[in-house]
Amino acid sequence: MTEEHATADSTGSRQRRAKRRGPPEAGAAPAAIAGIRRQVPTYDILNEESLVAIEEAADKILAEIGLEFRDDPEALRLWREAGADVTGELVKFPRGLIRSILKTAPRSFTQHARNPARSVVIGDDSVVFAPAYGSPFVRDLQDGRRYGSIADFEKFVKLTYMIPWLHHSGGTVCEPVDVPVNKRHLDMVSAHLRYSDKALMGSVTAQERAEDSIEMMRIVFGKEFVDKNCVILGNINVNSPLVYDATMTNALRAYAAANQACVIVPFILGGAMGPVTMAGAIAQSLAETMAGCALTQLVRPGCPVIFGNFLSSTALRSGSPTFGTPEPAAGSLVIGQLARRLNLPLRCSGAFTASKIADGQAMTESAMSMLAAVQCGANFILHSAGWLEGGLTMGYEKFIQDADFCASLHRYLAGIQIDENQLAFSAFQEVGPGKHFFGCAHTVENYRTAFWESEVADNGPFEQWQEGGELDAVDRSARRIKKLLAEYQAPALDPAVDEALKDFVARKKATIADQWY
Amino acid sequence: MTEEHATADSTGSRQRRAKRRGPPEAGAAPAAIAGIRRQVPTYDILNEESLVAIEEAADKILAEIGLEFRDDPEALRLWREAGADVTGELVKFPRGLIRSILKTAPRSFTQHARNPARSVVIGDDSVVFAPAYGSPFVRDLQDGRRYGSIADFEKFVKLTYMIPWLHHSGGTVCEPVDVPVNKRHLDMVSAHLRYSDKALMGSVTAQERAEDSIEMMRIVFGKEFVDKNCVILGNINVNSPLVYDATMTNALRAYAAANQACVIVPFILGGAMGPVTMAGAIAQSLAETMAGCALTQLVRPGCPVIFGNFLSSTALRSGSPTFGTPEPAAGSLVIGQLARRLNLPLRCSGAFTASKIADGQAMTESAMSMLAAVQCGANFILHSAGWLEGGLTMGYEKFIQDADFCASLHRYLAGIQIDENQLAFSAFQEVGPGKHFFGCAHTVENYRTAFWESEVADNGPFEQWQEGGELDAVDRSARRIKKLLAEYQAPALDPAVDEALKDFVARKKATIADQWY
Repeated sequence: MTEEHATADSTGSRQRRAKRRGPPEAGAAPAAIAGIRRQVPTYDILNEESLVAIEEAADKILAEIGLEFRDDPEALRLWREAGADVTGELVKFPRGLIRSILKTAPRSFTQHARNPARSVVIGDDSVVFAPAYGSPFVRDLQDGRRYGSIADFEKFVKLTYMIPWLHHSGGTVCEPVDVPVNKRHLDMVSAHLRYSDKALMGSVTAQERAEDSIEMMRIVFGKEFVDKNCVILGNINVNSPLVYDATMTNALRAYAAANQACVIVPFILGGAMGPVTMAGAIAQSLAETMAGCALTQLVRPGCPVIFGNFLSSTALRSGSPTFGTPEPAAGSLVIGQLARRLNLPLRCSGAFTASKIADGQAMTESAMSMLAAVQCGANFILHSAGWLEGGLTMGYEKFIQDADFCASLHRYLAGIQIDENQLAFSAFQEVGPGKHFFGCAHTVENYRTAFWESEVADNGPFEQWQEGGELDAVDRSARRIKKLLAEYQAPALDPAVDEALKDFVARKKATIADQWY
Repeated sequence: MTEEHATADSTGSRQRRAKRRGPPEAGAAPAAIAGIRRQVPTYDILNEESLVAIEEAADKILAEIGLEFRDDPEALRLWREAGADVTGELVKFPRGLIRSILKTAPRSFTQHARNPARSVVIGDDSVVFAPAYGSPFVRDLQDGRRYGSIADFEKFVKLTYMIPWLHHSGGTVCEPVDVPVNKRHLDMVSAHLRYSDKALMGSVTAQERAEDSIEMMRIVFGKEFVDKNCVILGNINVNSPLVYDATMTNALRAYAAANQACVIVPFILGGAMGPVTMAGAIAQSLAETMAGCALTQLVRPGCPVIFGNFLSSTALRSGSPTFGTPEPAAGSLVIGQLARRLNLPLRCSGAFTASKIADGQAMTESAMSMLAAVQCGANFILHSAGWLEGGLTMGYEKFIQDADFCASLHRYLAGIQIDENQLAFSAFQEVGPGKHFFGCAHTVENYRTAFWESEVADNGPFEQWQEGGELDAVDRSARRIKKLLAEYQAPALDPAVDEALKDFVARKKATIADQWY
């Protein structure tokens, strides 16, 4: 299998080739689509003057309000040496300092997967979809909502492996709460490496867990390769507003020191962890992520880092967070413009929703949020599939519906191709007024690659749908899950590597007592 | 009540004012939002060279393939006099002819509603949402799918009147199949005029029915006013590919002669009524709509006309039409660019789906399609609410979910406002690192207008949702329908006008025998 970066040529044939392969024959690996190359421009909604106003507001927050770096003397030392004003744990940044530090960060990098055909480029016009991250609960049609387990975790890794439209295996696809908190990372990284060969994310919940995650990658890729190449991402949340806690900065320093990429993610629900007005929340997000991205460059200049973003709204009468709403969708478009002005790869969030189930609310909100993510030029889209209930639940059938939307975005981001075949003048000559195009030569030549076809949607006649039992999108998704899991076969893993990983995990587990919270 | 064109100022207060009025008190009319003024740029995905290539392809279709105008000697006479080559019913258009004729069409016009506060501007940066059009079936949660009746029709008119986010009453909101085919238009126009005071669409299914529709508007607005102002729209479908039949051109000529606006809509499912490649289908759509728009200008130079568009895809293995798919979404963005280059107001379609019910498939497809419609700069968006099953069914609960998405688009299209209050520096000064923004002065001052809040979504905690009976978006929409219809009160109608309308309808009905097909 060769590397395929999904770039539609005039017939969209490369994507189609991948699609036609699927469903894989027994034993065949699912198609490798190593991300999308976006062929439509980004949707830029703010003018230069407005962007500069936000950048100045962010710079003012950095210079006059400052950020706290809690319980991490090493981070404070790095800032002091770089020329920041450090008072206690509060760090203020002279204007220009952070932008100057950020100049060493690469605008694009490759994250290597253990199968080279699945390595992804993160940056420039590349778009990579990864599943949702971090839910304590899972939900499916049959058993409803319950705590996630390592068995659920492994199922989501397998499903992600089977779906070519998800390019990345993600990280904590659900919390395996049946595994002790301090040992989960070992089982999670193992599962990604054993049940998939896509790129993955490691643990960030403690410095040692981050280092274990990286160490396991060294077992797979070799120490020298890992020192020179990105093979794992760590998702670093800012404790917004304006605080980095030591758990996160310790993990950040572990990834950066190992030349691995942090995703720096301010976590802002407007009105709670940030101002209730979008421009202010965006300025805060910019300030927070710039500071975290810069810290990685102080740890190891030139290491890869991703400008992250997690911005949503709040129902201010009830205090409930809301997702997939219009303000953060418009906000994402602005964030994209700001990230490009810094020449940094961008992470946005995908299929957001506050709905408890994969209903119309869920899919409306998810489509709104996901379209904003791709239109703003995000390079790495976390939470592309499965997210329910504001991130509390990973939904199986939601996952399938979202992944199908991801599939459709491969076509959307290819835009409209213009050439002689696409303009189809010969078809008009052949068919003429009042006839149909079904059988004409141009249609016959092009129909296989012409239109994207959903793997979940029901587009047939009403009567057929009725006779089929009036299945809805959730029912059909549940069937698809069964089929994918039945067809799943693990990708080959070098037995020596497998053994070494098992040995590492066993040794680590033996040295620490179980912690359950 | 004063006219409100929903334009968010820095706090979005005008829209909010409408929203805060919220469920109207008994007897109070729902807020009048006379369309949205789009404050974000359009999403332009093609460059100049590509646009010119499509325009040249359209011009070549017009010049070398030509269009048939069937059974309408008057249309052929108009074309011949204008300088086209007419052979039998086939009309070919010398290059430049149509663009030259189109110069008299206005780039923007007002469609007057009988309540002036609800008159809408169609063109420029105005966006007007109208419900779905033309379904023979209706569907609701309680009674499932059945043929539409005049009672259903009236309910949809009432619901549309009650929802401020739908700015226009639409036309055939469902087919009232319990009324004879040749008398439906009288009852439909009556219902729009009696149960709503929003702008509306008239009949196009026969010349006489078009003329009756216009005559009824003369009763309401006066003959002279109607001759000088647009008070009704007629939706003229092209019999694609490349055919105008006499039913449509007769109706077109009736509307244009009366100075009323036609919406000229090529109806193209790629691979069936047009080529299977998008660029070709777009070129065809451009050719077809340009010809129809130009014909209105031959009938009455300067009359308003709308550049329409209905482009979708086909599942080519089954032949089923598909909706809300990525190719037509990208196609809409291109159509928008082309319409603006002609300086014509643009109609696109909104909440498309092939789903039979208002499930996740329906709402994913609808969001994809609707976002393309607003992002491409469409001025009049038909099918904004209710569409199911490729237009065969008008769904009650789908209508409510779609209308809620329309509500959210009011905020989305306001974009991100930048000013001192929005940038919120005072909030950072007050709150500082690590605190929350819930109670701060800036939040208190802004929270009422800060975030859009859905009228359908459930954003609360899981436990609350569970205790509430685990309602999904369809269940909640069904409840909302009951509430809206219970609160409905008809807008005042001058008793003399009411009487004259009744008299006109009675006289017309008495002169014709019932036709049922």
